[in-house]
Amino acid sequence: MTRPSVVPEQILGGVSAPAGFRAAGVACGIKKSGNLDLAMIVSDVPSSSAAVFTTNKAVAAPVLVSKARLQASGGRSRVVVINSGCANACTGPDGYATAEAMADAAAHAAGVGASEVLVASTGVIGVSLDRKVVTDGIATAAKMLSRDGGPAAARAIMTTDPFAKEVAIEVTMAGGSFRVGGIAKGSGMIEPQMATMLAVVTTDAGIEPALLQRALSTVTDVTFNAITVDGECSTNDCVFALANGASGVTISEGSGGLFDTFVAAVQEVCEVLAVGIVLGGEGATKLITIEVTGGATDVEARRAARAIANSPLVKTAVHGADPNWGRLVAVAGRAGVDFNLDRARVQIGDVELFAGGRPFDERAPEASAHLKGKDVKLRVDLGTGKAGAARMWGCDLSAEYVKINAEYRT
Amino acid sequence: MTRPSVVPEQILGGVSAPAGFRAAGVACGIKKSGNLDLAMIVSDVPSSSAAVFTTNKAVAAPVLVSKARLQASGGRSRVVVINSGCANACTGPDGYATAEAMADAAAHAAGVGASEVLVASTGVIGVSLDRKVVTDGIATAAKMLSRDGGPAAARAIMTTDPFAKEVAIEVTMAGGSFRVGGIAKGSGMIEPQMATMLAVVTTDAGIEPALLQRALSTVTDVTFNAITVDGECSTNDCVFALANGASGVTISEGSGGLFDTFVAAVQEVCEVLAVGIVLGGEGATKLITIEVTGGATDVEARRAARAIANSPLVKTAVHGADPNWGRLVAVAGRAGVDFNLDRARVQIGDVELFAGGRPFDERAPEASAHLKGKDVKLRVDLGTGKAGAARMWGCDLSAEYVKINAEYRT
Repeated sequence: MTRPSVVPEQILGGVSAPAGFRAAGVACGIKKSGNLDLAMIVSDVPSSSAAVFTTNKAVAAPVLVSKARLQASGGRSRVVVINSGCANACTGPDGYATAEAMADAAAHAAGVGASEVLVASTGVIGVSLDRKVVTDGIATAAKMLSRDGGPAAARAIMTTDPFAKEVAIEVTMAGGSFRVGGIAKGSGMIEPQMATMLAVVTTDAGIEPALLQRALSTVTDVTFNAITVDGECSTNDCVFALANGASGVTISEGSGGLFDTFVAAVQEVCEVLAVGIVLGGEGATKLITIEVTGGATDVEARRAARAIANSPLVKTAVHGADPNWGRLVAVAGRAGVDFNLDRARVQIGDVELFAGGRPFDERAPEASAHLKGKDVKLRVDLGTGKAGAARMWGCDLSAEYVKINAEYRT
Repeated sequence: MTRPSVVPEQILGGVSAPAGFRAAGVACGIKKSGNLDLAMIVSDVPSSSAAVFTTNKAVAAPVLVSKARLQASGGRSRVVVINSGCANACTGPDGYATAEAMADAAAHAAGVGASEVLVASTGVIGVSLDRKVVTDGIATAAKMLSRDGGPAAARAIMTTDPFAKEVAIEVTMAGGSFRVGGIAKGSGMIEPQMATMLAVVTTDAGIEPALLQRALSTVTDVTFNAITVDGECSTNDCVFALANGASGVTISEGSGGLFDTFVAAVQEVCEVLAVGIVLGGEGATKLITIEVTGGATDVEARRAARAIANSPLVKTAVHGADPNWGRLVAVAGRAGVDFNLDRARVQIGDVELFAGGRPFDERAPEASAHLKGKDVKLRVDLGTGKAGAARMWGCDLSAEYVKINAEYRT
């Protein structure tokens, strides 16, 4: 979890902040509300690309199309097109043809090869996406692409997100500077039949597709894959990255190749977006950062951290500011990982409540005070004596979560 | 999931209904409320015994003591003693000594060997159990043991259960009859720091310990291990079985050995108790029976069924009577099992809502009507074309669950 210290400057512009990128967000009529529902992001010069896709086996048509085109181009995508309001999932062969038509329309409108497009959809599952509406929308969006279009693109991919999530940073080094921008949507399958998350990261650094993929996979693992709102994983999740080299900074491997600096910058962007998803999570009132140490391996620490983050008893205890260390011990013990009760330790904020096999309940008021804040830290040492560690971000479970998810269609 | 058809008669008496068993439930002062808090069950003749223990690695002292004594006796326990109101978990060496003292006191009071006692505790984690209070209580309970004590024992193991869970059946065959009785507690870690479930099954059939263990493990797998309220697993879970042969019916292996009939009878009892735990689950307003078919294996079907039963999105949809088949597909797809979207099928009640890769949303009102009832059936075929199947019982997720778990100490 250590990383090179980048001192990036946060800048405006989101996904179109890096040089050579334009973006647009338009309302093309997929959402009945008339809100923005189609985003397009284009690199004006050839770019490298990488992607991380949902592991859900009920995979949506646009995911299949993006996988195929990413492979066909050899990781050279230049365009990302995303609609919101309809996930185009569980829609059969006709839905697949619509996803293909979206990609083709975007390639045509942007003047790039058919294989150079990535496509994604988010919204209701099991509803057909109107092919003409979405392809007309793509033609319109292509005409509105601009260097200032990032914020509109961020809004156009929202479903029930309470706020748009975008960020951009500039990393300045001796030899020049490069930018990384990103947008994301997701609020934890907040509404029935909503796909969970999508993100697009752009950079004007130059980097080969295989190395970009390695950076994106590494970063996704400790950012987007380290958040949970309700433990659900959608049919449509994707993270896309495009790198066009327009800054003149080239990233390669080895010492002095800046790869670690680049990964740190991408991680900075993805962490802001990932934490933003949790903060906008369904019914969430608190951000919970869970740090697990003393695991037999990092993988085991991650498994314990995930179990804690998804535990309804932990989430409700935090919601009620109850410093209930017993629940943390019980969840760690059932997480299917190596765990030593006699050497385990539990901290809430900076307050140690359990260690050496015994509780320190006299410290409960101090821990409760910490839990009354919006930014909650839970630390569990699994007591194996080994160095496995992991961090996850989650949120509390409120009655509001139940209300929204139970009463959506009533 | 097929089993021999036993036509048992449901009878009164719970855990003391089988011949040769006496039970008692007393209030010894562990619970501040003055409610019953100590249960004792004794076989008046030597008996076989078996147990299934929590897999939680944060294991409570009484579980360790019971494991050791069960082994020392070679599966010949005659006494079960259980206190509620304090889990005696995370209490260090002193807690272990208290659990040993409980077992010794029960052995002395019942006049059996020290190794012939099983002990369990349920209640708050991390609080010391007063040794004198509990051992005095055991002495009192031993004096009150009676053939009518089953119902009091059932009440004495409750923590925040909304009702006592007990059942007894009599199986009559050509060669005689035998009885199986049981009690259980558990409401899904309903309160902070509560241990989840305990159950005791008694029978006057005669059966060797190894065979009794096989029966209990088989049955636990499809009953107590097939329920979930909130996906949590406590530090104190135990299921105990005692079989004393007082009916004169002896169970052995092979055809005509009645083993299958015996297993079916134990399953009948455990199923009633397990479903009772779900019905009394925290904030539960509906029982959800989940049947998964078409899995690559039974284990994979079970994993998918468990994921569905624990999904907050499925639980809230059922709570709101929303026939949201998309959530069932999405959860099955993320459950980490073989899944074929094009051949998968989803039924709510008897209404098929998704099959052949396409939805049947016109049937949604009929499915919604089913979901408005108290007894909800969800069926998912994973579409692998293989015969793996599983059943799980769960409950809906209500705002009441959040309220009780968040506000316990406020």
